[in-house]
Amino acid sequence: MKIIIVGATGTIGKVLTTELKKRHEVVSAASKSGDVRVDITSSASIKEMYAKVGKFDALVSTTGKAAFAPFHALKEEDFYTGIKSKMMGQINLVMIGKDFINDNGSFTLTSGILATDPIKSGTGLSFVNGALNSFGISAGVELTRGIRINVVSPGLVEDSAAGLGAAFPGHVPVPMSRVVSGYVKSVEGFGTGKVIEIY
Amino acid sequence: MKIIIVGATGTIGKVLTTELKKRHEVVSAASKSGDVRVDITSSASIKEMYAKVGKFDALVSTTGKAAFAPFHALKEEDFYTGIKSKMMGQINLVMIGKDFINDNGSFTLTSGILATDPIKSGTGLSFVNGALNSFGISAGVELTRGIRINVVSPGLVEDSAAGLGAAFPGHVPVPMSRVVSGYVKSVEGFGTGKVIEIY
Repeated sequence: MKIIIVGATGTIGKVLTTELKKRHEVVSAASKSGDVRVDITSSASIKEMYAKVGKFDALVSTTGKAAFAPFHALKEEDFYTGIKSKMMGQINLVMIGKDFINDNGSFTLTSGILATDPIKSGTGLSFVNGALNSFGISAGVELTRGIRINVVSPGLVEDSAAGLGAAFPGHVPVPMSRVVSGYVKSVEGFGTGKVIEIY
Repeated sequence: MKIIIVGATGTIGKVLTTELKKRHEVVSAASKSGDVRVDITSSASIKEMYAKVGKFDALVSTTGKAAFAPFHALKEEDFYTGIKSKMMGQINLVMIGKDFINDNGSFTLTSGILATDPIKSGTGLSFVNGALNSFGISAGVELTRGIRINVVSPGLVEDSAAGLGAAFPGHVPVPMSRVVSGYVKSVEGFGTGKVIEIY
């Protein structure tokens, strides 16, 4: 398969790229490096990426920003940080990419555990993750030509626990190998419209 | 209690207003009628509403637009219809209202069954509902002063089934009395951070 990984230089994206390269042709995409550059907050940039890459079989997104800040400090524009990047950035990867992807191809997006298991200062991320889960569930019944979509919702990944763990009291960090397996299941498996929880 | 109902003239809002008036002081708010006018797509309008109403004990929102259209016809701006109205409109009712609400007050927002049980042409609503559910779950752990928040997620209401039922094959319409009970539970009960599913 020819697989585009958006966010290929991130914590998860790096490891996933190594894994998928063992069996597939991987096109890495990121904002500042990779085979192609893409700014997911811009539809024009997403279109450019797809035009450059041409036909493909799978797109995996492991990227997107959202506000992490105390609830009482969150301003309307902080919510829009997550809306424009992690939420609509990833939704646009699908809505634009569906015209470029091969029959029976797949999209895999990334949400996160905060959709259902909240932490202090996490609301700016939680609502974005919830939107992505429901987008994936619904797009799963709407996509045509055998195209699949799933959303991987990772818990706190072991590799991030040193830096972020204090904000996630009682969360049991998830081994990166399990997180990578979630993406592999989405890309190489057969499910669609699923939220793949790796908690 | 002094309760603001935003969307008081809608299908659910009308019946809920009648029910809550039996026991409470209700301030009805809507875009074109009611005790106060409010356009939830405008933060300025929301601030004006709260300034007019003054201190209150509960806010219930049963309002908000989102795109209902075939997936392949959805444009980026159609997603933003839902983001600006049903999603951020209701989120802003909480984020702005938290500075006006009395201690131990409550917010009750409305999402919907499409968050998890999708239909054709529903993606523009599904992702909005998912965002609202996760916002409520997370805001429940972040709000202070004993302030509660819940999200009522109604299924297809019997009163709407004649007009909308064809789009919801196999969905069993829910009696309005059960939907109203969900809001009453949120306002008069003690839970917080809950998605109250009325399916």
